[in-house]
Amino acid sequence: MFKGTPSHPGGEFSSLVAAIGGQENAFTTADYTAYHQTVAREFLPLVMELEADRMANLVLTDEVVLPERDVILEERRSRIENDPGSLLSESVNATLYQNSPYGIPIIGWAHEIEQLDREDAVTFYDRYYTPNNAILVVAGDVTEAEVRALAEETYGAVARRAEPPARDWATEPPPLTERTVTMSDPRVTQTALNRAYLVPSYLNDVGNEGFALDLLADIIGNGPTSRLYRTLVVESGQAAAAGSYYGGTAVGSGRFGLYAVPRGETSLEDLAAAVDAVLAEVRENGVTAEELARAKRRVVAGAIYSQDSQAAMARYVGAGMTVGLGLEELKDLPRNVQEVTLDEVNAAARVYLDPKRSVTGYLVAPEPDERS
Amino acid sequence: MFKGTPSHPGGEFSSLVAAIGGQENAFTTADYTAYHQTVAREFLPLVMELEADRMANLVLTDEVVLPERDVILEERRSRIENDPGSLLSESVNATLYQNSPYGIPIIGWAHEIEQLDREDAVTFYDRYYTPNNAILVVAGDVTEAEVRALAEETYGAVARRAEPPARDWATEPPPLTERTVTMSDPRVTQTALNRAYLVPSYLNDVGNEGFALDLLADIIGNGPTSRLYRTLVVESGQAAAAGSYYGGTAVGSGRFGLYAVPRGETSLEDLAAAVDAVLAEVRENGVTAEELARAKRRVVAGAIYSQDSQAAMARYVGAGMTVGLGLEELKDLPRNVQEVTLDEVNAAARVYLDPKRSVTGYLVAPEPDERS
Repeated sequence: MFKGTPSHPGGEFSSLVAAIGGQENAFTTADYTAYHQTVAREFLPLVMELEADRMANLVLTDEVVLPERDVILEERRSRIENDPGSLLSESVNATLYQNSPYGIPIIGWAHEIEQLDREDAVTFYDRYYTPNNAILVVAGDVTEAEVRALAEETYGAVARRAEPPARDWATEPPPLTERTVTMSDPRVTQTALNRAYLVPSYLNDVGNEGFALDLLADIIGNGPTSRLYRTLVVESGQAAAAGSYYGGTAVGSGRFGLYAVPRGETSLEDLAAAVDAVLAEVRENGVTAEELARAKRRVVAGAIYSQDSQAAMARYVGAGMTVGLGLEELKDLPRNVQEVTLDEVNAAARVYLDPKRSVTGYLVAPEPDERS
Repeated sequence: MFKGTPSHPGGEFSSLVAAIGGQENAFTTADYTAYHQTVAREFLPLVMELEADRMANLVLTDEVVLPERDVILEERRSRIENDPGSLLSESVNATLYQNSPYGIPIIGWAHEIEQLDREDAVTFYDRYYTPNNAILVVAGDVTEAEVRALAEETYGAVARRAEPPARDWATEPPPLTERTVTMSDPRVTQTALNRAYLVPSYLNDVGNEGFALDLLADIIGNGPTSRLYRTLVVESGQAAAAGSYYGGTAVGSGRFGLYAVPRGETSLEDLAAAVDAVLAEVRENGVTAEELARAKRRVVAGAIYSQDSQAAMARYVGAGMTVGLGLEELKDLPRNVQEVTLDEVNAAARVYLDPKRSVTGYLVAPEPDERS
């Protein structure tokens, strides 16, 4: 069972309320918070009743809120402050997004989490945790009629507390500069490179750009036959790992990401040059029809396989619908992916893998004589 | 005559309303909009009457607002979009400030200016152009009693339309990464390097940090005896120009900036390394007592000379007071600067000229074979 409550992006507020609401069964992205439960069929009515109750009757006293704030700070310390790679990702993110709130970490900045209080939690809860701002997804051995009746009994009984606020995030200006972010930290034992390009999301793309970017990410960096892996890991042996991905499920901008981990004595500079050469080759000469056909098979198979798992199916539908994609679009994905042309994929590479749209992060250990 | 109306930082709104209000005699910073007039003594009552009128009775119809919006877009095109150096500065800015609104250009992003309408102008005007959100500074051959009486007659008659909003800008997380921004543009005929460090402002510094940073900027990069100039322009001949400055008059964070322009065949990489060497020397061994004494004389003299010009004096007081500095603090500046110790200046260099607080911008022309 999946329930998405869209939240303002980047938000210590989301994290705080989600933590209070039930951390172990919730996760927050830049665009929504999801609560999920996997239960035996006969417990569905009970779980829906409990979830509906959590939407209206969450206890938000100082006794509840303040310790949860400390839990989030501790979570931030252990997962982010203690991990130079995560700190680097935060800075890459803040650099990639020059105007939209996606540059703010989802968990929030420590100095802002520290300032949160009961009133912030109540305000956020009342504004976003209203039933008309939620999407309920139930996957499993159920009928629509049965779930609808249950939903009306449970969530249907929860009063509206607010109108869903428009999600008109500030958007990005045209990216014009090539940027780098270097995190030098004595705790780094393995150097690494990661890069993000500002690209359209499924929601704000033109034509098939989102699908084309997804296929491109597959061709460039998914698995042992991909360009990056074959060139850097298998052929030149410069990398221990390399890959790419497309993050297109977002209300605002999407991102095309890639990473590479050097092997042996390879420097990050040499590795970056080798990555650039792979991308330049794709931008210049395009991908092949064979590569595209293989990528389509993989992307379509992935979409179909995900339906084997109730949890994955629910998550797929919930994630898509909370950012604004329609159920039909989500169902039609396999067919739509098939329709993407070689020209569309090659155009996406030429237009969007432009260095001027990119931020490259370098994770390094300080030189022995470095002071700061 | 100077009148500062604090505005929200980074704002196409400020620019729009200021343009309508009287572009030729107004300027906008990240923290305030200032209207200024220099007039003969006998016109003071008239000008104050006109200025007070502009605070309440600005005509904000579509016929006025929409053409002014186009004026700002045109101004943005001619001053920023046509100048790769200005575009680079915008990107450096957006990279330096990861959380606070100082990352937004003062004039605004083009795609957001385009969306402004009459309602935006009216909302902004009513919220910020209220007399209780303004500071009037009159410098010249006048008495306090006379100006006070005039002010009560003119501005005093304008009704309050709003309470001044709290200027609690989001603040910056601790900066942890060294960042670079490269603007490669065929219009670039002269390469250049500029760098900004995130540092405290006069308003949010601890102890004498603001003054120490101001003196440090003077020692490192003000004039022909400064470290950067002497080393890079005079001695090595690698630079045609080099300097540094401290921007500390801000409600939020301040910045320490520096720039260098290569001479002849010097590459930006070599120039950056030479700049870094100058800074490393200062951070490691400190500045000398003589350098500090000379810097103090220059900073104090600057503050005193500025009082020779009515316009400069009014601007100095207005800028300081609109960001929240007291009149006494501003008057005491020369004495306070004298009290800064060598240790304080050297500590500021060690703590704040840390590469992890910095963003370096490179302005370059594309290589002949570069495509994008």
